[in-house]
Amino acid sequence: MSEAVGVGLIGLGTIGTGVVKVLQQNADVIEQRLGVPLRMVRIADLDLETDRGVDLSGITFDADTEGLLADPKVDIVIELIGGYGVAKKVTLEAIANGKHVVTANKALLALHGKEIFEAASKAGVDVAFEASVGGGIPILRSMREGLAANRIESLYGIMNGTTNYVLTEMEKTGEDFDVVLKRAQDLGYAEADPTFDVDGIDAAHKLTLLVAMAFGAELTYKDIPTEGIRHLTPMDFDAAAEFGYRIKLLGVAKSKTGADGVERIEAGVHPTMVPRDSLLANVDGAMNAISVHGDAVGPTLYYGAGAGEMPTASAVVGDLIEISREIRRGSAGRVSPLSYPSEKLVRKAEVPAAERIARCYLVFTVEDRPGVLGEITSILGENGVSIESVIQKPGVESGGAVPVLLLTHPAAEGSVRSALDEIDRLDSVSAPTRLVRIEEDL
Amino acid sequence: MSEAVGVGLIGLGTIGTGVVKVLQQNADVIEQRLGVPLRMVRIADLDLETDRGVDLSGITFDADTEGLLADPKVDIVIELIGGYGVAKKVTLEAIANGKHVVTANKALLALHGKEIFEAASKAGVDVAFEASVGGGIPILRSMREGLAANRIESLYGIMNGTTNYVLTEMEKTGEDFDVVLKRAQDLGYAEADPTFDVDGIDAAHKLTLLVAMAFGAELTYKDIPTEGIRHLTPMDFDAAAEFGYRIKLLGVAKSKTGADGVERIEAGVHPTMVPRDSLLANVDGAMNAISVHGDAVGPTLYYGAGAGEMPTASAVVGDLIEISREIRRGSAGRVSPLSYPSEKLVRKAEVPAAERIARCYLVFTVEDRPGVLGEITSILGENGVSIESVIQKPGVESGGAVPVLLLTHPAAEGSVRSALDEIDRLDSVSAPTRLVRIEEDL
Repeated sequence: MSEAVGVGLIGLGTIGTGVVKVLQQNADVIEQRLGVPLRMVRIADLDLETDRGVDLSGITFDADTEGLLADPKVDIVIELIGGYGVAKKVTLEAIANGKHVVTANKALLALHGKEIFEAASKAGVDVAFEASVGGGIPILRSMREGLAANRIESLYGIMNGTTNYVLTEMEKTGEDFDVVLKRAQDLGYAEADPTFDVDGIDAAHKLTLLVAMAFGAELTYKDIPTEGIRHLTPMDFDAAAEFGYRIKLLGVAKSKTGADGVERIEAGVHPTMVPRDSLLANVDGAMNAISVHGDAVGPTLYYGAGAGEMPTASAVVGDLIEISREIRRGSAGRVSPLSYPSEKLVRKAEVPAAERIARCYLVFTVEDRPGVLGEITSILGENGVSIESVIQKPGVESGGAVPVLLLTHPAAEGSVRSALDEIDRLDSVSAPTRLVRIEEDL
Repeated sequence: MSEAVGVGLIGLGTIGTGVVKVLQQNADVIEQRLGVPLRMVRIADLDLETDRGVDLSGITFDADTEGLLADPKVDIVIELIGGYGVAKKVTLEAIANGKHVVTANKALLALHGKEIFEAASKAGVDVAFEASVGGGIPILRSMREGLAANRIESLYGIMNGTTNYVLTEMEKTGEDFDVVLKRAQDLGYAEADPTFDVDGIDAAHKLTLLVAMAFGAELTYKDIPTEGIRHLTPMDFDAAAEFGYRIKLLGVAKSKTGADGVERIEAGVHPTMVPRDSLLANVDGAMNAISVHGDAVGPTLYYGAGAGEMPTASAVVGDLIEISREIRRGSAGRVSPLSYPSEKLVRKAEVPAAERIARCYLVFTVEDRPGVLGEITSILGENGVSIESVIQKPGVESGGAVPVLLLTHPAAEGSVRSALDEIDRLDSVSAPTRLVRIEEDL
């Protein structure tokens, strides 16, 4: 077989335009590697007017999604609509029509992946989604194939470029969250409604997919505790530096087998202090990196642009090439999309939040008078939380209150929360205590 | 088809033992991901006595390599003998017998890859070699598949764990090369004969494979300029730190298209100063990392253990799983081993060494008297090499000579070499000048 593979694209926005560019500018190397040409034959979008600055000659370009999904010249459909509604309908219809699908839609897969992957498996077509996690980084492929010999023990990822940009800028400039977010929005690094990014929801969607692939666990987006970065202050970055850390928004997942022999998953998205000389600490700006630890390979790390027109298009077109290779060989479905076949994905228990062990950074806002620190430390002690170090800062908060920064030894989150509940009710404590987890072994 | 895939192993040394361990300890997850069991059925080694501490029950274990290569129960042969002689013979014979091959032998592939890959292509079998570059890091897979949409522009790799360990220790302790090497040998991080590692040969073998995969260039090991780390001194590490760099042994390859429209490859292995806060600068000890820049994806980086029993076994077993998936689907040869099919690999011109542009760190050993620095800088100037900064150190070398450390602006290597030839003939210069390249954009 030496025919071209035909591609249909639904949604000609930024990423879609990047896909058209990559297929055009690298047509020669792609054909050399693949053996046949990979051709964009049809594009559907409601906006037929905007000039995207790419040459669409020879491509059928209209608003007829149904026509594209039924077009026999289209072997692979790229879904770049986003959201759960039309995107889901289009994806399932493409599968039903025997088309392979490439998507960058983590939200859709995190919530409806089970239904979509099962439909694809039955139809004997591939659903590829490398672009949905880590942008241009080939992280999903690495987990599914490169690390396939390993029992995955843990993973730690900077998986959202917007928040990493904001955190890097807050650290560098000492400015408040709101100021930096506004600038990020002006520069196009953050959306007008930044909720999905800054509240950790986007990272949690991605973590959901990684947890399934790492541990063979069913997709369980709703079960992932998620905390964003809105509450961080310039002082937290200073304190992190003093203690030898930097602050990153991490998606973290660990497999823990208890004394009862049952494997439980500990997954969450939260701001985290990471050791200053770790690789993850040195991932700045809009870049992403995911560290994956396997029982045989030990720690590995994958770094690159987590978003953007061309990096994301790189991942989409990489998927097109992989599927084209399978089309040529008749080997679709060679690798299960979530690494394990759907029927092997099992519901895995989670480590209850209260039992999760971590060192913590705590910021208390207290009256500047003798004895207050003693009250706090004794409440922590009564709850079994022991203290590693304390820094008392000169008063910077309003109302005569001063911040006290404290690092704990590893402690169960439940114990820390109980202690904080009690401490925050003290008359001498004038604002809710802030907590940032610390991860060392990443 | 639901039969087990049968594996035969030739060479039960450290890595081979690791492979047996991984197949045993992760048999359950491997079978879940693959759909069928992956079984070690036969091992050949001359040493049948040594206890490797693994359970070999149920495995035919003898010295009969020929028997293994002809055994119908063996679908995939793992070659872990090393070297070019028996290893080559065994590999070609396995291919001739219709067996797929997995190897970690970069030396063999860098020198005889063309013959081996062509034989495999004709026989319709796979040759996989993820373990040969970057140990457990899935770098080859990432280049062949994850980045397949990209025109690769450059790559920079810390690809030898022994030298990275020695460099890290030299920097940390301020000790001489010989002292640190001896300790590395005592600890098992360096071989009794460390030539392949410390002279950059091992890294050049690996770079040969990466160059082919990145640029579709024929394997040209002999053409790669290679420089080791024996000549580095503690002073170089101090100077690097003062200038804001760390020293790493890098394999570097760049694609450069000249004004004549001809693409040329600039590849080399040499000690390199890299910016202190780059990710590569923070890869310490025996770890490896490879940074690959694609035109669409931008910079990406892959990090992990570059050697060792279990990390290397992780890569070998990853290859076994990939080939097993292809056996089940009848899709062997789906991806060309060097990313491009053999007939598409073309001989590419190299950038002549003299025309390679780099900033350089130079160490002159000169008489401690006025006017010497002036002589040196004017010779550099006459050769078109301009100077960025100079540090004159208090006298530490014997014979009243002092070191002068100097950073140049980007200059052609030919110009720098001409200047150094002239400078080293000056009466006031008492030892050959040392040169370390600087790379910024990695």
